[in-house]
Amino acid sequence: MKTFPLARVYQLLEGGPVVLLTTVNRGRANVMTMSWHMMIEFEPPQLACIVSGANYSFAGLRAAKQCVIAIPGHKLARKVVDVGNCSGRDVDKFAAIGLTKTPAALVTPPLIAECFANLECRVIDTRLVNRYNMFILEVVKAWIDPAQRDPKTLHHHGYGKFVVDGRTITLPSRKP
Amino acid sequence: MKTFPLARVYQLLEGGPVVLLTTVNRGRANVMTMSWHMMIEFEPPQLACIVSGANYSFAGLRAAKQCVIAIPGHKLARKVVDVGNCSGRDVDKFAAIGLTKTPAALVTPPLIAECFANLECRVIDTRLVNRYNMFILEVVKAWIDPAQRDPKTLHHHGYGKFVVDGRTITLPSRKP
Repeated sequence: MKTFPLARVYQLLEGGPVVLLTTVNRGRANVMTMSWHMMIEFEPPQLACIVSGANYSFAGLRAAKQCVIAIPGHKLARKVVDVGNCSGRDVDKFAAIGLTKTPAALVTPPLIAECFANLECRVIDTRLVNRYNMFILEVVKAWIDPAQRDPKTLHHHGYGKFVVDGRTITLPSRKP
Repeated sequence: MKTFPLARVYQLLEGGPVVLLTTVNRGRANVMTMSWHMMIEFEPPQLACIVSGANYSFAGLRAAKQCVIAIPGHKLARKVVDVGNCSGRDVDKFAAIGLTKTPAALVTPPLIAECFANLECRVIDTRLVNRYNMFILEVVKAWIDPAQRDPKTLHHHGYGKFVVDGRTITLPSRKP
């Protein structure tokens, strides 16, 4: 995997792809599926995301204040659904579902080798957790897999219904 | 336009479409383009969005605490870009760009007739505005245009590059 410029991270997330979130709690890595996230700042790239207290990942994220956001291409759709339909309480999802943990550079939670992009994140604000289950993250290192060319992301519309990226159009615009 | 159930509003927004945001300030309606939003609660449907203080819409949103989120299909791409590339300070965007204001039921800002969905929203929390330009909204009424069947949304990837919705896949999943 190749380093990706932090200033362009928003271009990976702004379109609303389904992502996988890895965390570590008491030495054990876990992964969950997440669609409720948004950019809040271009550079340094910061985002907000919702991780419910009902998720097993919640405790690890709040305690260690680190995570990785891994962005899967559409070919991983089945694994993405499987990740969302079981809990790290009961199973080692990486082994059970077949996702490969790879060490990150700056944080403890692992990258996911099968994903075309991986964003190492630190939690920079937990003040909104109690009220909204909202974590504010800063991306401190970004990776892209150059072997996955023109990856198509998934957009969740509820109950396993996903829209896959279609064609790209480019219109003249001054806005980032 | 037809009423759309509030419990399913998340299915419209979770996938990360580019939206148009209408507001009213001192009796004048305005519209901006927005990609930084996310669901934070299913029902009542609540979301967070970022509206920078640099946007002309900011003052009206903060003062009146009302807005409409209008979701455009991909055929409106050029108008979506035009909305994002001028300011309500200088121009009546609705007239200049050709978007039709329609009265909302519960809020003052207008619906946009050309959009396939319109969500009437109240601002329910402004405590995150100073720190993050973040507004917490609750959708109080939702409309869908039944004449626009299978609308394709736009996902912004920076500088006028948009990915248009492609095919839909459905996998067995217990998760909403």
